[in-house]
Amino acid sequence: MKQTATFIPTLRETPADAEVKSHQLLLRAGFIRQNTSGIYSFLPLGKRVLQKVENVIREEMEAVNSVEVFLPAMQQAELWQETGRWYSYGDELMRLKDRNGREFALGATHEEVITSLLRDEVKSYKKLPLNLFQIQSKFRDEKRPRFGLLRGREFLMKDAYSFHATPESLDDTYNDMMQAYTNIFTRLGLNFRAVIADSGAIGGKDNHEFMVLSEIGEDTIAYSDQSSYAANIEMAAVKVDYPAPTESAKDMEKVETPDQKTISQVAEFLGTTADQCIKTLVFKADEELVIVLSRGDHDINEVKVKHATGAKVVELATPEEVKELLSCDIGSIGPVKLPSSIRVFADHAIKTIVNGVTGANEDGFHLVNVTPEQDFTVDAYADLRFVQEGDPSPDGEGTIQFAKGIEVGHIFKLGTRYSEDMKATFLNDQGRAMPYIMGCYGIGVSRVMAAVAEQFQDDNGFTWPNAIAPYEVHIVPVNMKDEVQRGLGEELYQLLKSNRYEVLLDDRIERAGVKFADADLIGLPLRITVGKKAAEGILEVKNRRTGETFEWKQEELLDQLQQFFKN
Amino acid sequence: MKQTATFIPTLRETPADAEVKSHQLLLRAGFIRQNTSGIYSFLPLGKRVLQKVENVIREEMEAVNSVEVFLPAMQQAELWQETGRWYSYGDELMRLKDRNGREFALGATHEEVITSLLRDEVKSYKKLPLNLFQIQSKFRDEKRPRFGLLRGREFLMKDAYSFHATPESLDDTYNDMMQAYTNIFTRLGLNFRAVIADSGAIGGKDNHEFMVLSEIGEDTIAYSDQSSYAANIEMAAVKVDYPAPTESAKDMEKVETPDQKTISQVAEFLGTTADQCIKTLVFKADEELVIVLSRGDHDINEVKVKHATGAKVVELATPEEVKELLSCDIGSIGPVKLPSSIRVFADHAIKTIVNGVTGANEDGFHLVNVTPEQDFTVDAYADLRFVQEGDPSPDGEGTIQFAKGIEVGHIFKLGTRYSEDMKATFLNDQGRAMPYIMGCYGIGVSRVMAAVAEQFQDDNGFTWPNAIAPYEVHIVPVNMKDEVQRGLGEELYQLLKSNRYEVLLDDRIERAGVKFADADLIGLPLRITVGKKAAEGILEVKNRRTGETFEWKQEELLDQLQQFFKN
Repeated sequence: MKQTATFIPTLRETPADAEVKSHQLLLRAGFIRQNTSGIYSFLPLGKRVLQKVENVIREEMEAVNSVEVFLPAMQQAELWQETGRWYSYGDELMRLKDRNGREFALGATHEEVITSLLRDEVKSYKKLPLNLFQIQSKFRDEKRPRFGLLRGREFLMKDAYSFHATPESLDDTYNDMMQAYTNIFTRLGLNFRAVIADSGAIGGKDNHEFMVLSEIGEDTIAYSDQSSYAANIEMAAVKVDYPAPTESAKDMEKVETPDQKTISQVAEFLGTTADQCIKTLVFKADEELVIVLSRGDHDINEVKVKHATGAKVVELATPEEVKELLSCDIGSIGPVKLPSSIRVFADHAIKTIVNGVTGANEDGFHLVNVTPEQDFTVDAYADLRFVQEGDPSPDGEGTIQFAKGIEVGHIFKLGTRYSEDMKATFLNDQGRAMPYIMGCYGIGVSRVMAAVAEQFQDDNGFTWPNAIAPYEVHIVPVNMKDEVQRGLGEELYQLLKSNRYEVLLDDRIERAGVKFADADLIGLPLRITVGKKAAEGILEVKNRRTGETFEWKQEELLDQLQQFFKN
Repeated sequence: MKQTATFIPTLRETPADAEVKSHQLLLRAGFIRQNTSGIYSFLPLGKRVLQKVENVIREEMEAVNSVEVFLPAMQQAELWQETGRWYSYGDELMRLKDRNGREFALGATHEEVITSLLRDEVKSYKKLPLNLFQIQSKFRDEKRPRFGLLRGREFLMKDAYSFHATPESLDDTYNDMMQAYTNIFTRLGLNFRAVIADSGAIGGKDNHEFMVLSEIGEDTIAYSDQSSYAANIEMAAVKVDYPAPTESAKDMEKVETPDQKTISQVAEFLGTTADQCIKTLVFKADEELVIVLSRGDHDINEVKVKHATGAKVVELATPEEVKELLSCDIGSIGPVKLPSSIRVFADHAIKTIVNGVTGANEDGFHLVNVTPEQDFTVDAYADLRFVQEGDPSPDGEGTIQFAKGIEVGHIFKLGTRYSEDMKATFLNDQGRAMPYIMGCYGIGVSRVMAAVAEQFQDDNGFTWPNAIAPYEVHIVPVNMKDEVQRGLGEELYQLLKSNRYEVLLDDRIERAGVKFADADLIGLPLRITVGKKAAEGILEVKNRRTGETFEWKQEELLDQLQQFFKN
């Protein structure tokens, strides 16, 4: 492509409203433009990168027998009403009415559409399993679109859905998809981890997020420094062998603690440490109020409370609810002498406290020398706290570290969540109607592009990996008014094109400084400068990623290129 | 692809609600399914055809330096308000509000978005021309979606937009696009014509529709039987040298014609023929009432009346308006003794009438022996009638014939219609701000697929052209329970795949009749049956389009295939 025929509006200044590096540089190098909040146009270079990301995904999907389809963005409301998501999805679902007043959702995801498609057609276990994917624009009305392509309202997504007769078949496909995703992100050169994740509102069992490690990530990942273990911090299990207590239990006493509200205030006031304090919180688990205990230096993880209590929805009780229950403020509550109907859940670490401190359920007082089982009873011990850096990895290998991650992919075992609601059944080998067992698998295509953009750049611009650079070679005649340079530039351009290289020719009449700055900004793997030595047939070549420069003779160009792109 | 791993839900019966052949067979052969009125899912085979159509389009666009972009479907209302189309586009434009109540249109077309993109970036004639295209879902809330993919509400479209500093530059690109479109539809094997078209509501000058000739087409094309001339019937010029009159003019007389309303009734009653009658209609041209005359055997073309009068909107006057003007019914009006302020437009054929018949502007009476210029005056003669079959072609070569056509593409010279409204200007070589001169160019991608489907089928199913068949070869082991057949089928499948053929393997355990019927229905170019002669290494081969069958030895398969697909 000749640069005069395409549209690459580079900018000298960093746009003021772009907060993260990928967004800034995608704008500056002329890859994208914002239309309105969270909605972007992909300019020619951006579209090429997107297309290459798509192709990598397509190849790896097909390698695991996922078959491509193309489903509509406009989805009749009735489908979403069948699963109840019409009501539960909230403001994030874009909705509209057609000229006859019929209601539609704009596809935020396609579980309903694809399940409805199969339920009318796939009636026998003999036709299962099936694994279908598509690459398509998705619409989600994010409350706070931000970071450019990383969190938009209209974005490109690969979504796949699998349908099975048995859980074992789902397991097989899930493992295939895990491998396909690993291949995709590896080919794209991303530094990522497959992370154990919470299934959230979508419902389901096993699931993994694929996280690109990045300081701008919005999720925290707990990973082992010695194994492949990684989990979303909300899901990371704590497996600590706390040392058995050596102290003997003393008699509990009530002490006055005027105006001491927080754990650290109380610990300091009483001359002890936070790990000797029993932190007590009241949660509302569905409609039941329950007490949850952790060590004062630990944080309670609501997801784990949800699992331990078996509730569908868990949230902290309000100060008013606590007051009504225990007649004191939340800073003074503790597990001693509770109303007998209240269930108490304690983190495993509580077991090892002897002569601890906790609230007295009376404003301005705490209890000291408190010991579990002697002074209060616990209904169930469980893993209820967030993992911390330095904890042992739950797989027994290494120590937990934290990192920030950008979620670029997600694979899920949905089970029968959708097929039951939508009465999408097949006849099993016994002739019985059973709901499909389903999986779903997403990749944020435009987000992946941003994640690569975030990782592959330096102070001068992009340093795209070969696999998804918009072009492979940038030919830059320094002075287009020089007959020899222009002629050689054009000749090389035709030569490389006819040898199937993807080439960008900077045929603009611009100053050398502008051309080099734009070339660095755009960041193609190899720049071939046609300058003063053109008359001698010598080309100045720059490896964009390493910054190395070398001279090639014109006649060795094809050999050298083959060598370069082979590596 | 193995058939057990993909999703091809064929149907034995023709779906009752599918009216046209393409729609019926796309459903029966499992290429598409309807989600709701005018909205479809593309199943695996349909998606493959769509992708191939896209690729042909992409290659030909790139060959004329059109560069691919990807613009959002969600378009802020403000852009459409700038051009006024927010108000004029009507119910066909899908509209929605986001969570903050901001209004959006779903992209029915992208003139506004792309013009807004360039106006902020392309400020100099030096950066023009530019030609940008995209392939993307479009949304139009058709009043009456029908014929499957031919008229849907969500459909895939290639739209391109070009921007120029001079009309000559637009002409060049327009011609390039004309050639690209011709290449595309030729490669797809379509029987089409580039047809001179009316520019309609979009505004603009030159424009051509690409019409696939088909009896289910909704447009009538007038074409020459000897040249490449073709025009939408509304736009086809009439260039007839009417024979000069030989009769002498007699004196006009008024005669009673009780209850004779239509031209044919009056002609019969008076013992003459329709071509001797002067048909008189009253049109409202903007706010002015005008008289339009044509021969009784000709039909008046409103588009031509619009051009002749220079009005923006032309419509037939109501009977009430006619009565108020001339004090008689519409069946009795004529051009004689009209109020002097009324302008009279006459088709060229009127000039040659001598002693004709026309209404007397008095109910129940007509005038006979009426001759133009002697008995009434005409303000302007013009080409005002529809062309008829048998008229000479306006390019002087051959005779006009009619055909029905499906519009699959459209190229337009927009001029400055959008850039003026949107204040999208560049500085010309004199340093003056000028609006971009624009062109736009569309192809209905999913509609093209339906047009090919309409044309390439026989009683048994599809007969896809090689260029866009979903796969090239269908391998059908007759009996999958037979070890030899299954083994050879699998072996050939792997062999062809590794030689880069696109192969579908029917590995289903089904009766031979079902397999053959499905293979015919799907319509891949070549079927290789692995049957009883498998043990001897003999393959039964069928050319789907011609129906020819032959036997190939296993060892000559690759050579034979190369031969077949070369032709």
